[in-house]
Amino acid sequence: MVFILNPSVKKEKINNFILSWERKGFSTILSVGTEHTAVCLIGNTSQVDLEHVVQTTDIVAYGKRITERYKAVNRNVREGNTIIKVGNAVIGGGCFTVISGPCSVESEEQILKIAKSVKNSGAAILRGGAFKPRTSPYDFQGMQAQGLELLRVVKNETGMPIVSEIMNQTQIGLFEDVDIVQIGARNMQNFDLLKAVGQLKKPVLLKRGLANTIEELLMSAEYIYAAGNSEIILCERGIRTFETMTRNTLDLSAVILLKQKSHLPVIADPSHAAGIRSLVSPLAKAIMSVGADGVMIETHNNPAEALSDGAQSLDLDQFNTLMKELKERAVIEKKEM
Amino acid sequence: MVFILNPSVKKEKINNFILSWERKGFSTILSVGTEHTAVCLIGNTSQVDLEHVVQTTDIVAYGKRITERYKAVNRNVREGNTIIKVGNAVIGGGCFTVISGPCSVESEEQILKIAKSVKNSGAAILRGGAFKPRTSPYDFQGMQAQGLELLRVVKNETGMPIVSEIMNQTQIGLFEDVDIVQIGARNMQNFDLLKAVGQLKKPVLLKRGLANTIEELLMSAEYIYAAGNSEIILCERGIRTFETMTRNTLDLSAVILLKQKSHLPVIADPSHAAGIRSLVSPLAKAIMSVGADGVMIETHNNPAEALSDGAQSLDLDQFNTLMKELKERAVIEKKEM
Amino acid sequence: MVFILNPSVKKEKINNFILSWERKGFSTILSVGTEHTAVCLIGNTSQVDLEHVVQTTDIVAYGKRITERYKAVNRNVREGNTIIKVGNAVIGGGCFTVISGPCSVESEEQILKIAKSVKNSGAAILRGGAFKPRTSPYDFQGMQAQGLELLRVVKNETGMPIVSEIMNQTQIGLFEDVDIVQIGARNMQNFDLLKAVGQLKKPVLLKRGLANTIEELLMSAEYIYAAGNSEIILCERGIRTFETMTRNTLDLSAVILLKQKSHLPVIADPSHAAGIRSLVSPLAKAIMSVGADGVMIETHNNPAEALSDGAQSLDLDQFNTLMKELKERAVIEKKEM
Amino acid sequence: MVFILNPSVKKEKINNFILSWERKGFSTILSVGTEHTAVCLIGNTSQVDLEHVVQTTDIVAYGKRITERYKAVNRNVREGNTIIKVGNAVIGGGCFTVISGPCSVESEEQILKIAKSVKNSGAAILRGGAFKPRTSPYDFQGMQAQGLELLRVVKNETGMPIVSEIMNQTQIGLFEDVDIVQIGARNMQNFDLLKAVGQLKKPVLLKRGLANTIEELLMSAEYIYAAGNSEIILCERGIRTFETMTRNTLDLSAVILLKQKSHLPVIADPSHAAGIRSLVSPLAKAIMSVGADGVMIETHNNPAEALSDGAQSLDLDQFNTLMKELKERAVIEKKEM
Repeated sequence: MVFILNPSVKKEKINNFILSWERKGFSTILSVGTEHTAVCLIGNTSQVDLEHVVQTTDIVAYGKRITERYKAVNRNVREGNTIIKVGNAVIGGGCFTVISGPCSVESEEQILKIAKSVKNSGAAILRGGAFKPRTSPYDFQGMQAQGLELLRVVKNETGMPIVSEIMNQTQIGLFEDVDIVQIGARNMQNFDLLKAVGQLKKPVLLKRGLANTIEELLMSAEYIYAAGNSEIILCERGIRTFETMTRNTLDLSAVILLKQKSHLPVIADPSHAAGIRSLVSPLAKAIMSVGADGVMIETHNNPAEALSDGAQSLDLDQFNTLMKELKERAVIEKKEM
Repeated sequence: MVFILNPSVKKEKINNFILSWERKGFSTILSVGTEHTAVCLIGNTSQVDLEHVVQTTDIVAYGKRITERYKAVNRNVREGNTIIKVGNAVIGGGCFTVISGPCSVESEEQILKIAKSVKNSGAAILRGGAFKPRTSPYDFQGMQAQGLELLRVVKNETGMPIVSEIMNQTQIGLFEDVDIVQIGARNMQNFDLLKAVGQLKKPVLLKRGLANTIEELLMSAEYIYAAGNSEIILCERGIRTFETMTRNTLDLSAVILLKQKSHLPVIADPSHAAGIRSLVSPLAKAIMSVGADGVMIETHNNPAEALSDGAQSLDLDQFNTLMKELKERAVIEKKEM
Repeated sequence: MVFILNPSVKKEKINNFILSWERKGFSTILSVGTEHTAVCLIGNTSQVDLEHVVQTTDIVAYGKRITERYKAVNRNVREGNTIIKVGNAVIGGGCFTVISGPCSVESEEQILKIAKSVKNSGAAILRGGAFKPRTSPYDFQGMQAQGLELLRVVKNETGMPIVSEIMNQTQIGLFEDVDIVQIGARNMQNFDLLKAVGQLKKPVLLKRGLANTIEELLMSAEYIYAAGNSEIILCERGIRTFETMTRNTLDLSAVILLKQKSHLPVIADPSHAAGIRSLVSPLAKAIMSVGADGVMIETHNNPAEALSDGAQSLDLDQFNTLMKELKERAVIEKKEM
Repeated sequence: MVFILNPSVKKEKINNFILSWERKGFSTILSVGTEHTAVCLIGNTSQVDLEHVVQTTDIVAYGKRITERYKAVNRNVREGNTIIKVGNAVIGGGCFTVISGPCSVESEEQILKIAKSVKNSGAAILRGGAFKPRTSPYDFQGMQAQGLELLRVVKNETGMPIVSEIMNQTQIGLFEDVDIVQIGARNMQNFDLLKAVGQLKKPVLLKRGLANTIEELLMSAEYIYAAGNSEIILCERGIRTFETMTRNTLDLSAVILLKQKSHLPVIADPSHAAGIRSLVSPLAKAIMSVGADGVMIETHNNPAEALSDGAQSLDLDQFNTLMKELKERAVIEKKEM
């Protein structure tokens, strides 16, 4: 159940309203949007007389029952969309935000070269993996803390906000200068990690798990939101199916449904979805055409020598060409780039 | 192994060349394209000295080994794309062809009304199901022969070529006036039916099975081609995955890969892939943006009352709006509509 | 809705009862079991007052609403199990029936040798493919009519009933001497073929499709039953999943659920499910231990030289060992072998 | 590459042998089995002349190349099976070990009652969830530290070793009295957690992820082994497929293949695989019949009131009946229970 409050209700009144529900045994989530403020009631609300609350409380404009299991991230609690700002970049609203960079940070020279190039092509945010989840313990595990340090250096030099994947909550201290913390597909249901990043004061990029449903992705976002962090970016990155010709199967319908069912921004990652370089650019255009808020693309100055995911990385020229194609299409899709 | 022949080789010489291979125990497929003619050799070609053949035969320009299991539909046997013409409609090449109409033919009034409307909006080909594969024996099984007769009437009245699904080879006689014969997803590996439509002198629209790989789709096309029919349209229509919020999962990467690996035209069907009306239009745009040769969209004059697939059918206004959006995007994608 | 009739009601009364419903627009299916006779009503029964019917009709013992979409094959229409007899073999009831033989009939010598050996080991029914559904048009397509003829010869010589796969309804005439007609996984939703074999007076072995749900399998069985043939054997043979180390994934829960939800006999095919010889025997034992009515095992006198499916075929000694192991376990599972 | 050492080689010689390889840039894993000791070489061994090493080193009996990506857990490094002992329980070798208990610890009374009952029925190890990974943040998250404390109390009272799931590495201190640490399906590729439990001196029960391949499960076990812990129990618990009638699809072939490919003990969990009570007992028997080393079964004194997973929990009588059935079958399967 969600109560949409009247405009400009005083904070104290809201707190009292919330307290009154918590005393009755409900949990609450306060959702402060640009248009209005909402209070979500969590618990068994079947006995709550919604009309009665609206009529007897002077701060509530109207109320709605939310039948879905996801409450705070539900589109029903907000009229508008959640818009997230990091540095000069904006995710959500009318923007199409491109995040780009290498799978792994490999050296200062590498990450700096890529950052300058993709920024020049129009990427708004730099990605770079420092802690790498790898199937084999014998594969390159990332530059770790040193990788984050290199990202910080490049962020200072280029002004680009940075996003990097966190693998467990003991690393949180290391992510102070990282602008967006990424939860990888394999950790989408690492609930303790979700709770931990829910306490951060910075955006979280939450990737869909390989075998997780759209509803489960929203429930994982709900974990982060319920822990106190409302800046969540959802990311479709391909699901595991029987098809073996691609690394995963990009589920484009998920992007559309997530936008319909939640107020959170939704992006997609065609690089991991496809696993094949030649599919990345067409899929990126498709992602824009279904109304996504952005795209995350792996790039490398020398894909053939990349320490990870070379086969799916665009080189810097290919990325530049793609950006031109996206900008051309952004006009028709009424997206800012 | 494929031999690309020199231009303007006489038919007799080609026949002799073919015969010489068949005497050695190989099967052959003759592929006559607009640019050049090719002869595919089927069988164990590991002992064939490709260079020797090229040097000792005066009709062969060059040869290639084809490692894939699909031979005649392989892009390697042709420089250009297969282009299929039915009436005024063209599928393949630079066109983006829209096929539209109801899931089931329900009455003359219904099919005529829909046909006129979608033609007016820009659809090139009319679809309509007469024989309906339904999960339950107690569900509406289609108007059958009478449905085909109504399609014929509407074809005459509107001039639109028609496509309809065949369910078994005993029906072939009934499909004389049907311009394109459709093989449904459940019949993609009904090999006897593939062989039968391989003997027709009209195009076949071959839908990917719910759980069939891209390679298996190409192998099924190979069945049709090997039986003598080179006019095949491949159609991605969603695969079965663990996700339950959509009817199927549209595999857009498959469209791109099919175009890379085969010279055949490739379209997609967002209606069956999604199963939800609100996903159809965004997916249709995405399908265009990855380079498909067309799209197949279910429409109905009154979706709420449709005898089948109402939930995924666009109404005629929605279809008209989609067509405008597609035409706008066709310019940027350099597609004729 | 199903009406269980009183014992020894006269045929004429039953016919009148059925007619009275058909006049009201319902379809009916008459189900004659060993214990009792039932009449299934197909159509919108929401307005039918079940109690009223029971009280006003003297031939009805009691009635039940069937909420599942499958009606005639539903366990609710029968107290006991459907038991199918072919020659000396029995499928269903307390028996564990082993069907064995080669993937493909290759020669009289081959099929006769295998038949004698598997019969000697205790197999009750001989399998042998004459028409082979193959992914590639260039692979061995089976001996076709000649293969069926060889099966007939071996049947006469050994006395074993035979089962072989039909690929389309034009072949029905050729299957006169085949005791059980098999519908392969790829044809599970070839509805016209289901209707055709529904008119036969012999048992049908219906294999689950690679990507078909348990409910869809029951609906396909319902097609056959509704067309007039109540002798249907359901066969789980592995489904398609993301796992690539096995050919398919045997869904053993499906065997248990099918037995719970339907009165039809249920067997499983570990050879196709696994695709790897060393998995076949342990899986066969597992199939017995969950209560299946039998198992279908591919065997070959020389698997290394088999024209198809050699990798998953047991040789004759391995089969003999397996049979001993199964017989040992049959005692504990209270199954006759 | 693995080198099997001669019997009774002195520790110092082994250390020198290992050091000589590490100086050349290889990683090594020392595997001490009951029969022999092996040294695994990790790295690019393509230039290592295996024969030369065997002939020039007096401590090596023979060597083998391991082509699989999993090295230390590979069956090739050991002749026998890894056998794990906890308290009076043994996992692996000729035993069939039953682990049982509730999904969640709910109270001292509950867990004590269940423990005594399942012990009485023959369960060797008690399971009980204290930290619960739940899809929704609003669902019961387990009794946490208090739950572990109750397990400790019950362990002392009954003498049963206990297994409980760890959700992140910060909890390790709390698991001091837990005999076997469980890694849940959602954490199978939480690589940092794998490395952390790899440093424990107690067995780890590693569950297969919902969408992880058999090879990936072995690679995750390799993470634990490579970090220093060789006591790993692999657990198949069902994978996610398109079928919706069951919670997951038990992949019984995986049990067989894991036993073939690794020396580690392999158990399965039919409760989570099926999600339906009536499937648990037949699946448990099937798991025994394919050669698993044990089974993990959820039980509850009052399933209807369980705080989690009630629908798939056996009550204590049902469990007792199942244990009798398993013991009967253990004789025939030559397993100790």
